[in-house]
Amino acid sequence: MATQNRAPVLTPQAEDFPRWYQDVLEKAEMADNGPVRGTMVIRPYAYGLWENMQREVDSRIKATGAENVYLPLFIPQSYLEREAEHVEGFSPELAVVTHAGGKELGEPVVVRPTSETVFGEMMAKWVQSHRDLPMRLNQWANVVRWELRPRLFLRTTEFLWQEGHTAHATEADASAYARTIHLDVYRDFLQNALAIPVLTGLKTPRERFAGAVTTMTCEAMMGDGKALQMATSHELGQNFARAFDIGFTDETGQVQTCWTTSWGSSTRMVGGLIMAHGDDQGLRIPPRVAPIQAAVIAVKDDPRTLQVAADLVAELERFGVRARLDDRTSQGFGRRATEWELKGVPLRVEVGPRDLEAGRVTVARRDSGEKTQEPLDTFAEEAPALLSRMHAALIDSSRARLAERTHDVATSEEAFEAAQTGFGRIAWSTLGEDGEADLNRRGVTVRCLQLPDGSLPEPQTPGDDLVAIVARAY
Amino acid sequence: MATQNRAPVLTPQAEDFPRWYQDVLEKAEMADNGPVRGTMVIRPYAYGLWENMQREVDSRIKATGAENVYLPLFIPQSYLEREAEHVEGFSPELAVVTHAGGKELGEPVVVRPTSETVFGEMMAKWVQSHRDLPMRLNQWANVVRWELRPRLFLRTTEFLWQEGHTAHATEADASAYARTIHLDVYRDFLQNALAIPVLTGLKTPRERFAGAVTTMTCEAMMGDGKALQMATSHELGQNFARAFDIGFTDETGQVQTCWTTSWGSSTRMVGGLIMAHGDDQGLRIPPRVAPIQAAVIAVKDDPRTLQVAADLVAELERFGVRARLDDRTSQGFGRRATEWELKGVPLRVEVGPRDLEAGRVTVARRDSGEKTQEPLDTFAEEAPALLSRMHAALIDSSRARLAERTHDVATSEEAFEAAQTGFGRIAWSTLGEDGEADLNRRGVTVRCLQLPDGSLPEPQTPGDDLVAIVARAY
Repeated sequence: MATQNRAPVLTPQAEDFPRWYQDVLEKAEMADNGPVRGTMVIRPYAYGLWENMQREVDSRIKATGAENVYLPLFIPQSYLEREAEHVEGFSPELAVVTHAGGKELGEPVVVRPTSETVFGEMMAKWVQSHRDLPMRLNQWANVVRWELRPRLFLRTTEFLWQEGHTAHATEADASAYARTIHLDVYRDFLQNALAIPVLTGLKTPRERFAGAVTTMTCEAMMGDGKALQMATSHELGQNFARAFDIGFTDETGQVQTCWTTSWGSSTRMVGGLIMAHGDDQGLRIPPRVAPIQAAVIAVKDDPRTLQVAADLVAELERFGVRARLDDRTSQGFGRRATEWELKGVPLRVEVGPRDLEAGRVTVARRDSGEKTQEPLDTFAEEAPALLSRMHAALIDSSRARLAERTHDVATSEEAFEAAQTGFGRIAWSTLGEDGEADLNRRGVTVRCLQLPDGSLPEPQTPGDDLVAIVARAY
Repeated sequence: MATQNRAPVLTPQAEDFPRWYQDVLEKAEMADNGPVRGTMVIRPYAYGLWENMQREVDSRIKATGAENVYLPLFIPQSYLEREAEHVEGFSPELAVVTHAGGKELGEPVVVRPTSETVFGEMMAKWVQSHRDLPMRLNQWANVVRWELRPRLFLRTTEFLWQEGHTAHATEADASAYARTIHLDVYRDFLQNALAIPVLTGLKTPRERFAGAVTTMTCEAMMGDGKALQMATSHELGQNFARAFDIGFTDETGQVQTCWTTSWGSSTRMVGGLIMAHGDDQGLRIPPRVAPIQAAVIAVKDDPRTLQVAADLVAELERFGVRARLDDRTSQGFGRRATEWELKGVPLRVEVGPRDLEAGRVTVARRDSGEKTQEPLDTFAEEAPALLSRMHAALIDSSRARLAERTHDVATSEEAFEAAQTGFGRIAWSTLGEDGEADLNRRGVTVRCLQLPDGSLPEPQTPGDDLVAIVARAY
């Protein structure tokens, strides 16, 4: 094995998972702290990953009929005072611009913690007639929430996200759309692009987004058994439309109030990807979003090796594989192999003189660590299928961990115990809001409520039919 | 003609060009003012256009070997005091966050007017050895410069842009790279994607970016004969690298200072596109970046018409044309036709019962207004070639206007006169810095210095060999 004779460069996960996480961010050149506390510099390798993730999420969002817009970074402070519930939720997190253009502003301006209020103002203006509905808008932007305990990707003062807001003529249409976003955009992306199995369910009233009627969530299990909320979708009923006066004239000429939804996902998903798939050797990037899917290493500085390696990169690209040539032969092979391993590149392809004589290459799979000899002639053509199998293997092993670390429990105390190593499943009628409050005090939360078969409940499903998933969470 | 019996919905360009610009932004649903003065809401149609523009620019940037990163929105105030020249350039434009997390900050934080200083800090950290060079980084982000006289897209308090920063081992490499970006990214994009002919040249010392050794610019002529700066690229020599201590160890173990470049383009280019191509009927969107390349209008509410129109949209998409079905038959045909015309959709395809009987469709070209009958069977297959011809026609007519409105002049006074309707070309040795200062006082600027044949000079070209292009500018 390539790793045999090298000292570990990362803190082992079992020793200190958060430390492992910090180590891998640094050694794999993913991110740095920004100069202002709590902010983040996303380095090229991680940003390339984010671009691929963004493209996958964006195309799914567009397939539901939504269009992208851009709303301003600055929001008048008075806007946030409009919806009282909203201010309570955010005000300690706000960054406020008091000076601009060389002088003090008449009204301070807030850096958006979300664009919700501006979406409200704009939709009120743009929606007039039933012909304008449904109005489905999405925005990719940076937002700011002042964080006391920042952690790169997971919780940063500024982060990148998408924020969707829609207005509908009927409750049924709004509800169906929020569900579509949740299942066909978020769940599909997380499972089929990130290879992360997710639990989809409803948030409890305590965990629900302020102002929402229903909050749906995608919860994933990290390598240490903790939960991470990956994306949420909200049905806002008519609350938001009333606060912002989003109405329309129906076919009969009557003025009606809209039903709205909102939904979001962020760079936090990068943190989730790292913690869901990484191992003691570093990252394991799921093939479909990997900036580099195959690193082709020229082992020795010899013309034929260099040529064959370069040709193989071109051939891989011809078959749609994102390949990168590593011809840094002045550096040791072991060091380079470790680097690609750290960076979690799915396939490491080693081209050495001995292999070439035999007409083959050595291929190391990052998911399993398995090394095989493959025919040079046919490898590029086979690579896409291999990457697909690796995607399946990644999600299978994550599913196995999720199953292994999830326990059906019958009491609140057992639920607390289960949450120390993974997830607990307990009847919501048994746990109840009092049980939830008690778990919260001990650092455990209800991540979501599901139907017993694991599927997403309808908003109106009676509580007695639901199962609560409890866990410690990031 | 479709426009014959309709009152003009826009102020005619000849009557009041800036008013026409505002009208078209509103009526074509491009942008709104944001709630904070000087900010902008980019509506779906304009944002779709920006996404296409961004994709075209981004792929050209990546082809030069640059990678994208993301740096934080917030910059400590002390950073901007580091490079004195820089502060002078920006400080009245800064927006300053003084309160966050519910209290006053120890050190105020500036909302980035550019990320230059953070790029400097980060490159100093990331560049160590000659092996790390060239380091070519780019960022797509929002930036804030407090504007006293905002105008949508052209000059807004917040705008979207890309900002590239690179570090090189030698002056020659830095210089060649800046030139590549300028010609192969910006000029190529503007001409081959936006169909806008541009003058590429050097800025005079007075117009040069603070801290730059050479500033290259792409200048375009708008519909009213004024100039708009579309993109700039800077050679920063070693000034910036010295200020931020960006150095590297060369092959011999010596520590050397890097040579750096920076370059940017922004949502201002959307304004340029509008003003370069728009006419009294509205926008004319160049086909390659048009969010909708063909609007297929079902003229009547009859099942066969609707079916054929929907099939035609699918067929157009099959041939790679971005098509949109307009089946809003409850609205008058004329109103719908006007809307697509206003929005500058390149092709308007009318499907009516009479056309169908004859096995054809009516196609209106937005560039020329020309209407023809095309065979229904073959139209979709021919459409991509037609769109290419339209691109060529758009750039040809812009080139003709540029030629017609550019005058060779021999004196500063003649240059001033030429600038009242277009561009003046005058020997730089004749005009000189005094002549430039005089023109400036009268609202005319030197847009760039070119070689007499219109090509981009080398940075060291003697002034006597150069021709100055003077104009009024946005």
